Amino acid sequence: MDPHSAVGLGGNGVLGVVIPLDENRPDPEASLTDLVALVATGMERVNATILSRTGSSVQMIPEVANHLIASGGKRLRPILTLATADMCAYAGDGAVKLAASVEFMHTATLLHDDVVDESDMRRGSVAARIKWGNEASVLVGDFLLGQAFRMMVEVGSLKALDILSAAATVIAEGEVMQLAAAKNTETTEDEYLAVIRAKTAELFAAACEVGPVIAERPRAEQAACRAYGMNLGIAFQLVDDVLDYGGTSASLGKNVGDDFREGKITLPIVLAFRRGTDAERAFWKRTLEAGDVSDEDLATALTILRGHRALEDTLERARHYGAMARDALGLFPKGPMKQALLQVVDFCIARAH
Amino acid sequence: MDPHSAVGLGGNGVLGVVIPLDENRPDPEASLTDLVALVATGMERVNATILSRTGSSVQMIPEVANHLIASGGKRLRPILTLATADMCAYAGDGAVKLAASVEFMHTATLLHDDVVDESDMRRGSVAARIKWGNEASVLVGDFLLGQAFRMMVEVGSLKALDILSAAATVIAEGEVMQLAAAKNTETTEDEYLAVIRAKTAELFAAACEVGPVIAERPRAEQAACRAYGMNLGIAFQLVDDVLDYGGTSASLGKNVGDDFREGKITLPIVLAFRRGTDAERAFWKRTLEAGDVSDEDLATALTILRGHRALEDTLERARHYGAMARDALGLFPKGPMKQALLQVVDFCIARAH
Repeated sequence: MDPHSAVGLGGNGVLGVVIPLDENRPDPEASLTDLVALVATGMERVNATILSRTGSSVQMIPEVANHLIASGGKRLRPILTLATADMCAYAGDGAVKLAASVEFMHTATLLHDDVVDESDMRRGSVAARIKWGNEASVLVGDFLLGQAFRMMVEVGSLKALDILSAAATVIAEGEVMQLAAAKNTETTEDEYLAVIRAKTAELFAAACEVGPVIAERPRAEQAACRAYGMNLGIAFQLVDDVLDYGGTSASLGKNVGDDFREGKITLPIVLAFRRGTDAERAFWKRTLEAGDVSDEDLATALTILRGHRALEDTLERARHYGAMARDALGLFPKGPMKQALLQVVDFCIARAH
Repeated sequence: MDPHSAVGLGGNGVLGVVIPLDENRPDPEASLTDLVALVATGMERVNATILSRTGSSVQMIPEVANHLIASGGKRLRPILTLATADMCAYAGDGAVKLAASVEFMHTATLLHDDVVDESDMRRGSVAARIKWGNEASVLVGDFLLGQAFRMMVEVGSLKALDILSAAATVIAEGEVMQLAAAKNTETTEDEYLAVIRAKTAELFAAACEVGPVIAERPRAEQAACRAYGMNLGIAFQLVDDVLDYGGTSASLGKNVGDDFREGKITLPIVLAFRRGTDAERAFWKRTLEAGDVSDEDLATALTILRGHRALEDTLERARHYGAMARDALGLFPKGPMKQALLQVVDFCIARAH
């Protein structure tokens, strides 16, 4: 029986119970639209803050920073900070600066990542390191990190500072973990999860946790928002992993198969490797570990991944974390902000289709 | 008349006034010994903190961090934090963590600098980026920066957090400024000073300022310690610039002429370029701007620098900032810590001989 049909007559002839619209059921029409509309005023102030805080008398800094910041991105992380603060009835000024801090931390990570990954493209544009050099990417990243901390200090919440500075450490640890695990096809699913928890999900978690923290809500609500962000972040990264093999160049802003060509071990690979034949494992070792990749290898990789349902099952795992994210918000009363945050989970996963 | 002779008979026959030992007069026997002894107990705790805070379950992080941290360096910056806190009669626990934070900020800068400069050597050892790759240098630097902020948060002084996070931003700005000015032989002395104020002296200034800040001393003492650190930092960098052309490989831990080969514009170059003939300017443009450097060019460079007294006069400029650093401490009463801090200025300059 479709739980969306409000009333039904059971097969045994008794009048069916009314089944309420289940907020834990994924919304097939999920989009970011509601959430974006709800935080629009705050995000205008976040964007103005971002613009003013990339300002520097050193000309190259706003150039490089704005190249990346202006090139889009949904600004999901700062949106989450505003949204969780609002859901917790926060009425002060601090959320805007914390949201801008979160976006700066994210941008700094992207700049440093490009140097680490030797990427040529980012968000559909030439990567900053190609245009201005590795030096500028490292240093402007450092500048943005410094500005992020300055804004947090201005907000004055030591607890929020603690959360975000700890996140900065954990993110770097996650990146180093990824580096150490790089090109190791025998990475386990648990090891991979530890990496993406640290390098991606931790910032989502921190972005969501500081909302109830500055609103001075009870610990349980802080933990709930943190868990929502953490699981949303994991789901988000897993869907990204799928998109890297299944999206189109146009919609993704980068080429399909980037992870494959860079020898990145992501969950689809972890699953396919463990489910594969000896010949398939030899293929993954040659291409990902030895870096011996020809033009036809991507097609072969996709065939193997599909043969083992590795992309579908990665998405299934993402749904699992998405469900955890939805449940984490259970203790908050219904309201438009909560509803919009639930939709975001579904939106993140629906990207993969 | 030698002001160190306590009593003299003036030429006009009247008894000369007693001239006290002038604390503003450079001490030719200057060394770090006194200061190191005075902060020894605190530095043991700083070193233990540094060791424990580079700990991570991600093995590569302590490896890379300790490669650099264990390879020496005088730890002048954390020493300055302990010393200024002590001079201001601070009795709490915070100075140790702030001192460790300062050293982590410095180490992070060194790691990122090596990537920016593409250096092969650092403190007489192979640079971390050569041993572990640029990726590790970028990311372990980020990790240390995150840990630095976590320790500051633990200390709980928003004012100290403000000073050190602002310093992080200014340092990055200074590095970008240097990048933008790189290979420009027409850099003015003022432009060069702006760069080293930001990239080197700001951290000295912040390291010294947080001492009186956590001791909750009046603004004038905070400003005095900041000015001491700022001017000491400028003098320190100018002496480094001289050492790069005049030190020996053994004593310096890096090869003489590194700055020259990397096309770095430092004050000796700025002075020699402005004082030079057209032929000499063409030489600097060829070697530093165009990067066309042969093995004999370093000897030529040294001859030109000496011909214009560029190294001596850079050292003279360093003495000027050293004198400002000494005077900045004027309002503090005499005492062994103040005396040791004055000696440090002379020690920094005496390195150049």
